[in-house]
Amino acid sequence: MSELLYEGKAKKMFSTDDPNVLRVEYKNDATAFNGKKKAVFQGKGRLNNAICTKIFHVLQENNLPTHFIDKISETEQLVKAVSIVPIEVVIRNVVAGSLAKRFGLDEGVSLGRTIIEFYYKSDELGDPMINDDHALALKIATEEDLAEIRRQALKVNDVLQSLFSEAGILLVDFKLEFGKLKSNGALVLADEISPDSCRLWDKETHEKLDKDVFRRNIADLPETYEKLLSRLEAVK
Amino acid sequence: MSELLYEGKAKKMFSTDDPNVLRVEYKNDATAFNGKKKAVFQGKGRLNNAICTKIFHVLQENNLPTHFIDKISETEQLVKAVSIVPIEVVIRNVVAGSLAKRFGLDEGVSLGRTIIEFYYKSDELGDPMINDDHALALKIATEEDLAEIRRQALKVNDVLQSLFSEAGILLVDFKLEFGKLKSNGALVLADEISPDSCRLWDKETHEKLDKDVFRRNIADLPETYEKLLSRLEAVK
Ligand SMILES: Nc1ncnc2c1ncn2[C@@H]1O[C@H](COP(=O)(O)OP(=O)(O)O)[C@@H](O)[C@H]1O
Ligand SMILES: Nc1ncnc2c1ncn2[C@@H]1O[C@H](COP(=O)(O)OP(=O)(O)O)[C@@H](O)[C@H]1O
Ligand SMILES: [Mg+2]
Ligand SMILES: [Mg+2]
Repeated sequence: MSELLYEGKAKKMFSTDDPNVLRVEYKNDATAFNGKKKAVFQGKGRLNNAICTKIFHVLQENNLPTHFIDKISETEQLVKAVSIVPIEVVIRNVVAGSLAKRFGLDEGVSLGRTIIEFYYKSDELGDPMINDDHALALKIATEEDLAEIRRQALKVNDVLQSLFSEAGILLVDFKLEFGKLKSNGALVLADEISPDSCRLWDKETHEKLDKDVFRRNIADLPETYEKLLSRLEAVK
Repeated sequence: MSELLYEGKAKKMFSTDDPNVLRVEYKNDATAFNGKKKAVFQGKGRLNNAICTKIFHVLQENNLPTHFIDKISETEQLVKAVSIVPIEVVIRNVVAGSLAKRFGLDEGVSLGRTIIEFYYKSDELGDPMINDDHALALKIATEEDLAEIRRQALKVNDVLQSLFSEAGILLVDFKLEFGKLKSNGALVLADEISPDSCRLWDKETHEKLDKDVFRRNIADLPETYEKLLSRLEAVK
């Protein structure tokens, strides 16, 4: 028995016979600007599934706890069911996007130190930025959750900076979601890590290898994601 | 010799013969919405100077380090010269204003715990909200500054909640600025605490006794500030 539990902007989540396991199906839909820009791209689901799988494998090899179980088809994964902490965790190594705009900074400038930002995951409210006091007062997360999220996010950043660097790619910024395992409550990395949720630039040319090619009409999305996948597959 | 060093939206800052001392003149100008709404009110400078003086006296009696030296005329104070930390520190006890809007919360709901927010003080950028990582990466403040600012801000909140409570007033939220003394670098409370920078509601009726009467065209500003001043003067 398999039931559609939730259809989001990029994925469908299905139940499985095991209540602690979900099946994720990556869709071909691309959205941007909080859903205001939309398109469908043949192959996007397959590419994101492949890229995300590669990334989660590397994270697991580095002993990071994640929801990932296995890739089971071109567009599907099995993952551990979690209760998502409703915080979008943004990790920034280089100035880009909204950070550049907010502070009048030039895109591409390396930050002296990594910036972690928390956004309250709520399409309705437009994902407002929050600080720890908001998270605690609004009961979005506990103090322990926030400390553990920061700890894991920085470790993910270290591992992924190395991985992408070996592929000749600069990890500019990316978004993570964490959740607590239905089975035992442990905090683990959930959701996806893909060119939909990262800014990835060629180290030398700063060519964009991520969803900004769609947001800013720069290049063909599936061609771009295909290029990224081959460069990642060439690592190791 | 006295030179106009800076004219802001609400005050003029003059040099004095002592390089460690400034003269502040409270203006009659009222501004809102980052300067988009403007008016002049006879008596506003006098009222804010009196209210701010009363508040700084109470803070000093409670051993909080501030820039305040003395009130020297109806509209003027002497203060210690500081180098301002460019962070607007907002302390919230009750939901109101932008917090209500951002999170879809009802104004007037008491927060289970105090929320401190940092905004980068930059009229040009529209005072964007920042977290500690932004402050550190953009070199707006050091880790020690942020910890000391939080410590002092919470203590100011305690002292002012008591003071206003004795006047039958609820301290909903307020904005502080801190600076480092020109003389010895110590971090102290600077700028002003006035109905321009606080939300103050009558405890029983929730009648507004602050600049929101101007922002939202609710009541006469000088009459409102006069009422606040008499209630504060009646304390002790
Ligand atoms: N392991 C998991 N268990 C439960 N929910 C998950 C898990 N991983 C991700 N999710 C959630 O499933 C949804 C994934 O679909 P997505 O299309 O990305 O949604 P959205 O449009 O809300 O970002 C998101 O709400 C995400 O937080
Ligand atoms: N003790 C002080 N020493 C130096 N500058 C101060 C001191 N107290 C306040 N200031 C600064 O002086 C200016 C006060 O004027 P104000 O009219 O409130 O300006 P603004 O429109 O920038 O808020 C502000 O920039 C404030 O940060
Ligand atoms: Mg998503
Ligand atoms: Mg001011």
